[in-house]
Amino acid sequence: MSSPPENDSPEALFASLTNSVRRLVDVTIRSQASLDTIASAKATIDAAADELGQDLIPGSFGVQEDQDGRPLAWGNAVIGLRNALAPPLVVHHESDGRVWADVTLGAAYEGPPGHVHGGICALLLDHILGATAHKPGRPAVTGTLTVRYELGTRLGPVQLQAHIDRVEGVKTYAVGHVSTSDGITVRAQGVFIHPG
Amino acid sequence: MSSPPENDSPEALFASLTNSVRRLVDVTIRSQASLDTIASAKATIDAAADELGQDLIPGSFGVQEDQDGRPLAWGNAVIGLRNALAPPLVVHHESDGRVWADVTLGAAYEGPPGHVHGGICALLLDHILGATAHKPGRPAVTGTLTVRYELGTRLGPVQLQAHIDRVEGVKTYAVGHVSTSDGITVRAQGVFIHPG
Repeated sequence: MSSPPENDSPEALFASLTNSVRRLVDVTIRSQASLDTIASAKATIDAAADELGQDLIPGSFGVQEDQDGRPLAWGNAVIGLRNALAPPLVVHHESDGRVWADVTLGAAYEGPPGHVHGGICALLLDHILGATAHKPGRPAVTGTLTVRYELGTRLGPVQLQAHIDRVEGVKTYAVGHVSTSDGITVRAQGVFIHPG
Repeated sequence: MSSPPENDSPEALFASLTNSVRRLVDVTIRSQASLDTIASAKATIDAAADELGQDLIPGSFGVQEDQDGRPLAWGNAVIGLRNALAPPLVVHHESDGRVWADVTLGAAYEGPPGHVHGGICALLLDHILGATAHKPGRPAVTGTLTVRYELGTRLGPVQLQAHIDRVEGVKTYAVGHVSTSDGITVRAQGVFIHPG
């Protein structure tokens, strides 16, 4: 675990901003406000986006380095501190190679009513299985991913787990699953490759 | 194709609100504004979320019916009109059973620098392959999904395509792919099931 950011650090400020945007994504889906209130909130949101949008990184965030040369994937769709689409996943690496994350998935991750979208399970499994193969500064890319859905995954607290089955040359074979209080809901296996 | 909503309809207003939130998600990732501006924008966003959040649908949006009894999946993580995580995908069904969607994926969908996250490709493929099996009022759920990554998928315009390979009882076997100007980047096959 890295040490928590200081409260007034850029990291803490961006995390706080992005958490506010995550809450906004959620209430945009669930609001029962009047149409006048919706129109007023839209104008407020546009004003905030105008403020933030005056000076933009061209294209996308990519992977930037902090002052100590550590890579920051703050824009990443699954783990990005500054990406409101990302839950974000906080990935834990155990000394035995096991990788896991606990996450709570709300209304924004819905597919079938009350349940996580099957594709969101695939998204998170791709990331957590890939994390078993990840080496600092040497990310692995997905070769193949096979996902088997055994039960619906209810919205709410979800655990993701993965471990390496075997390594053959540049290929890491990983397996993992999604589980909830209902038990294991989705299983996956994947091949992850370190580009030459 | 359904007719476009009238400009002042609730549908048009929610679409407009959600597009504003999508832009906010993007600039939250890419902003190079000063820390003072970030803090000020956060306060503005919190005010908008407070306005929208005073009266919320409990839990999640689910699938609601419009006044003509048609199902609305406005909260869906891939196609939801009110879900800022969703690009959203506009899924076209051809008379020969082929299903496709054109979508532009920006900074919020990034994995490897400049490229779409592999799991986002899996998310979108799950949805577009599943759409081949979808029948009005009788959605199909994913049984298995296998995704093969052939090339990196650059951020920008992306096309998704799928068709049915065969149907066996309650199981629909679908195949499809992601393509960009580089050609086909990711292929998938899946089994989708109509629950009994």
